[in-house]
Amino acid sequence: MGSAATIAASPSQVQAISLANDGVVLLDQVRLPHELRYIKIMSADEMRHAIVTMVVRGAPAIGIAGAFGVVLSAREHAKAYPDNVPACVLSILVDADLLAQTRPTAVNLQWAINRMKRVMSDFTGDVAETLCKALEQEAQAIFDEDLAMCEAIGRHGKEVVPKSAQILTHCNAGALATAGYGTALGVVRAAFQVDPTIHVYASETRPRLQGARLTTWELQQEGIPVTLIADNMAAWLMKQGQVDMVIVGADRIAKNGDTANKIGTYSLALLARAHNIPFYVAAPSSTIDLSIETGDEIPIETRHADEVAWIHDETICPEGIPCYNPAFDVTPAELITGIITENGLIKTP
Amino acid sequence: MGSAATIAASPSQVQAISLANDGVVLLDQVRLPHELRYIKIMSADEMRHAIVTMVVRGAPAIGIAGAFGVVLSAREHAKAYPDNVPACVLSILVDADLLAQTRPTAVNLQWAINRMKRVMSDFTGDVAETLCKALEQEAQAIFDEDLAMCEAIGRHGKEVVPKSAQILTHCNAGALATAGYGTALGVVRAAFQVDPTIHVYASETRPRLQGARLTTWELQQEGIPVTLIADNMAAWLMKQGQVDMVIVGADRIAKNGDTANKIGTYSLALLARAHNIPFYVAAPSSTIDLSIETGDEIPIETRHADEVAWIHDETICPEGIPCYNPAFDVTPAELITGIITENGLIKTP
Repeated sequence: MGSAATIAASPSQVQAISLANDGVVLLDQVRLPHELRYIKIMSADEMRHAIVTMVVRGAPAIGIAGAFGVVLSAREHAKAYPDNVPACVLSILVDADLLAQTRPTAVNLQWAINRMKRVMSDFTGDVAETLCKALEQEAQAIFDEDLAMCEAIGRHGKEVVPKSAQILTHCNAGALATAGYGTALGVVRAAFQVDPTIHVYASETRPRLQGARLTTWELQQEGIPVTLIADNMAAWLMKQGQVDMVIVGADRIAKNGDTANKIGTYSLALLARAHNIPFYVAAPSSTIDLSIETGDEIPIETRHADEVAWIHDETICPEGIPCYNPAFDVTPAELITGIITENGLIKTP
Repeated sequence: MGSAATIAASPSQVQAISLANDGVVLLDQVRLPHELRYIKIMSADEMRHAIVTMVVRGAPAIGIAGAFGVVLSAREHAKAYPDNVPACVLSILVDADLLAQTRPTAVNLQWAINRMKRVMSDFTGDVAETLCKALEQEAQAIFDEDLAMCEAIGRHGKEVVPKSAQILTHCNAGALATAGYGTALGVVRAAFQVDPTIHVYASETRPRLQGARLTTWELQQEGIPVTLIADNMAAWLMKQGQVDMVIVGADRIAKNGDTANKIGTYSLALLARAHNIPFYVAAPSSTIDLSIETGDEIPIETRHADEVAWIHDETICPEGIPCYNPAFDVTPAELITGIITENGLIKTP
């Protein structure tokens, strides 16, 4: 991202990713909430770096980022091979596969890149520029569909939100994690529109603090009341009757409903069950991986120990202490009250 | 503490608090692990400040700190009223009550100060200096007894530690939290001595990060293997079969066994139960408050929201976000496998 240009920030709406004629614009989520900075991604390689370093994050958003990364690759190679579609496709496929490998847990990334690959395999023309346009169209469709799915998730999800609900959410499954509007926070947004007495608890979500940095910021933009808690406070909050429901996003959902999501989700699901609190997952159907039967088959990304050991450029522990850093965990379907998709509520067994 | 003198650090042994002829020496636990700095506390007022700001922390250690604070008060007032014991006592009692109010949850503080008050009410002499010596003796006895109790807790506790155990602990219930040796970490130390294949997981313990800063440091000093995790990773670790037992300290134990301890303890107890993992509390009998029937009667200290919002002089959330910050929670006795005291293991109902 050394070459990524900084462009003017637009604080009026939360949009984390968009396709421009000369690149892909990303809201730099590593710098939030202290700095609202948009950067322009100019190549598939820069996009890979942005996904790995979590400049863009959230399962639906990295799906879109992957598709947009393929577009950047197509633009580059269409210039190199304007009349040689097979050569152009081969080059794009190399980039596409590298993009697909950036993060293993969220299935939306594979799903989006597979859609882009299908456009290439279906393409019968001999002008690379035309292929490029077709890929742009598909990528933009992935974006547009995601936004529409989030809004539909909000519509369905608000039906399960009780009056004046105290809603606990984890990590950020919001506009920042999607094309816009959000999944779990889409439900919050839709519920808030009809009932402004709801209140959100955001768990900070160590190690990367997406709850503290992103969810509070996103909700604050729209005046939705939110209180921050440390992750280890959720059980006590539940015990005091301060949580009416838990709602989280998802990175991958197996056929049986087992759900991989940000580390700490499984913990919240167990704690919600212990307190008889409904626990919902909100996700577009692109998150459901019908190729796997159970959560046991979901690869769990382990990230660098330094993410645990370092906060704000300072360590929290002595040098030489090993840290465990799984980025996700799997919540078994039996702990999930329901999965809210764009098609409605799926009650889990 | 502006006037507190800095004295040379002695890294060869972990002792967080000691009574000297010219003050009380505290290892500054706010600065660990980055700086090993001892400060000298010169007055009861400085001691209050040290307790409130958590320069000294841990239920047994703040009991000792309270008693030592009373000694500092006695030394000061014995000089002012060398031949007027009643006037001296009245002045000391003011300081003693202020010290007792610094932190409401840990009962050891009240318990230690009550012992100091009893010395004053039992005193029949008319030389303030003699009273002062009697108070010094009592305070040192509290310290010495605590150390002996911790060693006894270790002896009893090691019997419940399985061979090559993976032990999860929360916060710091170690030498730093006591006169030395520790309660939960006393059990770890005693177990490690007979079985060097044990391994500890320390949960970081947001917001003040005592697990990350203190427990890892303390265990590292003695070469006891320890891995740091974020608080929200415990459930997933348990799910993978990586935790054989949980052991924590306590700030106050009600007559029925309900136990107040650092926020996040209740969460770990629920998660341990869900995975059929034994959950132990290790504490000296001074932590048991027979005056209350259940945990419902334990006052839970709420600390400043900034402890959640700020890490290392930078905020983790936007300005204006409210934070919830209970310093402790209560674990019901039915989730506790046993309470390890200096007298042996108490099985909870």
